[in-house]
Amino acid sequence: MLKIGVLVSGGGTNLQAIIDAIDAGKINGEIVAVVSNRKDAYALERAKKHNIETAWISKKQFVSFDEYEDALIDYFKAKNVGLVIFAGFMVILTSKFADAFKNKIINIHPSLIPSFCGKGFYGLKVHEAALAKGVKVTGATVHFVDSEADTGPIILQKAVEVKEGDTPEILQKRVMEQAEWVIFPEAVRLFAEEKLVVENNIVRRVD
Amino acid sequence: MLKIGVLVSGGGTNLQAIIDAIDAGKINGEIVAVVSNRKDAYALERAKKHNIETAWISKKQFVSFDEYEDALIDYFKAKNVGLVIFAGFMVILTSKFADAFKNKIINIHPSLIPSFCGKGFYGLKVHEAALAKGVKVTGATVHFVDSEADTGPIILQKAVEVKEGDTPEILQKRVMEQAEWVIFPEAVRLFAEEKLVVENNIVRRVD
Repeated sequence: MLKIGVLVSGGGTNLQAIIDAIDAGKINGEIVAVVSNRKDAYALERAKKHNIETAWISKKQFVSFDEYEDALIDYFKAKNVGLVIFAGFMVILTSKFADAFKNKIINIHPSLIPSFCGKGFYGLKVHEAALAKGVKVTGATVHFVDSEADTGPIILQKAVEVKEGDTPEILQKRVMEQAEWVIFPEAVRLFAEEKLVVENNIVRRVD
Repeated sequence: MLKIGVLVSGGGTNLQAIIDAIDAGKINGEIVAVVSNRKDAYALERAKKHNIETAWISKKQFVSFDEYEDALIDYFKAKNVGLVIFAGFMVILTSKFADAFKNKIINIHPSLIPSFCGKGFYGLKVHEAALAKGVKVTGATVHFVDSEADTGPIILQKAVEVKEGDTPEILQKRVMEQAEWVIFPEAVRLFAEEKLVVENNIVRRVD
């Protein structure tokens, strides 16, 4: 069974969606650790409620970013993690981490990549940019993480309608409910069943 | 009733979608002229079949691009055109034309803008780029035309799924059928009913 490590920074609603999918028997895997860079992240509480091991590993605890990154790698390697999930993880790691878990890290981004992604596009800022551009369709993307922000191979995407009168907050909620919490567990399920193959930076489904 | 001028270069399937919507009584407008830069564009045959006036106006007929553009403007102004539609029109006009029909020109682009748009992205090249990036969702965008390529206010967008094994041609056909031929007539309908307002480069619907 796939051992999953999760990195979080905040409320953990995407973590919850994956926990729920596992509890419902949809994903052939188990979360072996939830690690936060913030001690007070509510995501840690969610993990504890489901008897999942948690850890607080922050760069404050290390003399260099390099050592912080090594600690994260060592922690997950020691647990034989076969998949690392970034579930609202707000730290940008280097290619060292990406290389340590090549094609074994997945992230969710709240837009249809390549729109509204890359440096500076995170959280509400993504939805603010979409509304400022006046798009009528946005969505979410689950992708493998490579060494640059939001550039890795795309696993799944789902479109969401932008409506008249949307604020960034309203749009964020709709994208979470209609897209993120749907495609993130689905991508983990496909990964756990070994149905994803990356060729030339493109994800293909094998059945 | 709204008088519509259409600019074409090729087969005219989007023109046909609009003609059909008018014939079905869905659009409160009439096409008063279809103008092609190419003499042999099949779109001209489609127009003739519906007794719509056609013209061949090419830059070859003028000593400068400026005069060509003036001729197009004069032609449509003489017909009291209140809306100009670019239906697969492959010539890039300058801001002179855009200013002559400000917020009265609409174009369709075969992607979800701001993805895969701008210079060099036209026709099959758009779908080739989408497949090369490995996106799982693409679509089409109807927008007002301003002085730059594909940057004008977005009127409507519709998402289309990318499927395993898609070629640019297969994807192009699906985007046309599921998105372009749906949202282009719908955008013309909304324009004809004066339900579109542009504020700060964003299109709002008024009912």
